Amino acid sequence: MAVYTEVSDEELSAFLETYDIGTVLSYKGIAEGVENTNYFLHTTQGSYILTLYEKRVREADLPFFLGLMQHLALKGLNCPLPVSNRRGEPLGRVSGRPAVIITFLDGIAIRRPTAQHCGALGAALAKLHLAGQDFAMHRPNALTLEAWAPLFAQAEAQADTVSSGLAERTRRELAFLAEVWPRGLPAGIIHADLFTDNVFFIGPEVSGLIDFYFACTDAFAYDVAICLNAWCFETDGSFNLTKGQAMLAGYQAVRRLEPQEVEALPVLCRGSAMRFMLTRLVDWLNVPPGALVKPKDPLEYDRKLNFHRHVKHAREYGLEA
Amino acid sequence: MAVYTEVSDEELSAFLETYDIGTVLSYKGIAEGVENTNYFLHTTQGSYILTLYEKRVREADLPFFLGLMQHLALKGLNCPLPVSNRRGEPLGRVSGRPAVIITFLDGIAIRRPTAQHCGALGAALAKLHLAGQDFAMHRPNALTLEAWAPLFAQAEAQADTVSSGLAERTRRELAFLAEVWPRGLPAGIIHADLFTDNVFFIGPEVSGLIDFYFACTDAFAYDVAICLNAWCFETDGSFNLTKGQAMLAGYQAVRRLEPQEVEALPVLCRGSAMRFMLTRLVDWLNVPPGALVKPKDPLEYDRKLNFHRHVKHAREYGLEA
Repeated sequence: MAVYTEVSDEELSAFLETYDIGTVLSYKGIAEGVENTNYFLHTTQGSYILTLYEKRVREADLPFFLGLMQHLALKGLNCPLPVSNRRGEPLGRVSGRPAVIITFLDGIAIRRPTAQHCGALGAALAKLHLAGQDFAMHRPNALTLEAWAPLFAQAEAQADTVSSGLAERTRRELAFLAEVWPRGLPAGIIHADLFTDNVFFIGPEVSGLIDFYFACTDAFAYDVAICLNAWCFETDGSFNLTKGQAMLAGYQAVRRLEPQEVEALPVLCRGSAMRFMLTRLVDWLNVPPGALVKPKDPLEYDRKLNFHRHVKHAREYGLEA
Repeated sequence: MAVYTEVSDEELSAFLETYDIGTVLSYKGIAEGVENTNYFLHTTQGSYILTLYEKRVREADLPFFLGLMQHLALKGLNCPLPVSNRRGEPLGRVSGRPAVIITFLDGIAIRRPTAQHCGALGAALAKLHLAGQDFAMHRPNALTLEAWAPLFAQAEAQADTVSSGLAERTRRELAFLAEVWPRGLPAGIIHADLFTDNVFFIGPEVSGLIDFYFACTDAFAYDVAICLNAWCFETDGSFNLTKGQAMLAGYQAVRRLEPQEVEALPVLCRGSAMRFMLTRLVDWLNVPPGALVKPKDPLEYDRKLNFHRHVKHAREYGLEA
């Protein structure tokens, strides 16, 4: 959460002249989004977010992300709508960075969700899956099974400095996942990063989903697994079955999981935990000097992975029989 | 510019229940203010800033700062109004920090002001001086002449590592200033830190003055000197006479400088440059590891000081004869 790129008044003015969104009344750098620079923008026409894409987002992927947000917003999903400029394009440039203006969404990212929040999140996730079904573009998941071995290779030699035995545990788990990873599950657009920071609530209702910059085409149930990991564990590492029940019931009320998805869920949870453990581990071992962002703990996901190793059936996550 | 203290949802909710400002719709940490943590707060009743005071602001000074902002806002000056809680007090506590909610002001901090901006700033500064005249509280300037020698003592030994000869130049200047520092000038409430970050514009008009946490009781003309230093030099170090003329004319259109203030202006400019050179030098030599804020260059003010040493009369700043 940081402002990586300072935008001068002149640059901002010149950029905004390419849009039809009124006169700027104020703009402030906001501490939101780990990957990009974001400004809150208040104009005579409303409130917006100006996002500057920093190098971690591939520019070639932006048409997919922006097209997806437009598609989902037009389908009635509460997500930011990229505003098109006077040339009809959502993507521009500021301070040498690709940049967009998106609509501002009210709502609060709940850091400690209750079971009620988890239920609402499950329903919102299923709605996202349904709304994305007729989106024409595709983007393969760049952080699924095939990516994990190369990621691990970057960290393997130092893994045991983070936790004793982590290298060996991860090697065995990767071999297991490569063998059993499910194929042919119902698939489509998934968010792939629906952590609590990326879901806004007003009261008990979901008011917005944001940050679609990991969205891709993959198994719906993998997205469910990501959310079980991100929302249903307590800070002490325990799995909260009530939250799992609420999330899965919320999801199924909108989109029923198919038998093969139910069967695959424990392995998908292991894979999802592996994905976040690995990216966090690589970040942890490569904190640049003067970094503005504190790296997240990879061992949180090592512990979650260990929990999932003992799960035999999706019922143990709270799935109704 | 950073968020030093993370506020949890629970802490925020509990804090806001002590206010009568509606239901929170969103809040976001904003990159504003070097000294404090600020959140943008949108509620069903309007937009606010939640400020958490970090350790650099003395808690004992807060009643002065908050009382001053309330006084000035009620006098019609565009400055944030501290919102009183249900007990009628503007000051509360969040996450172990003293905290206030102030009204949100629209406007843009202009980083490269034109002469027109300087003129508007001059007038706004004079209005602030007049509006503060019947404010009952007093606060001595903690960063004036008497503070400079102790500040310099913290940096003297290392000063020449920053710029060759800086220690000797500063010693001589401090001796000079101690000898000639003007006393008995017209005095009252001064802002004492009215840099471009702390002045909002909408178009050519000043829409707000913010950040009163250096405000104190001191000579009005010293505040003028601070603004000449902060607003009328170009980034190449040259003094822009047109901007100086505009600022001083703008000021005098609201409050005419007295002959003794005019006479004192060159020395006050030297003193003001010394004050910012010294605090920047101490910060420069004491950057904590992992600092979120980049220290400002003390030599910018060493160069400004050198410019003022050659000024014989306030006319050279653009004061009309």
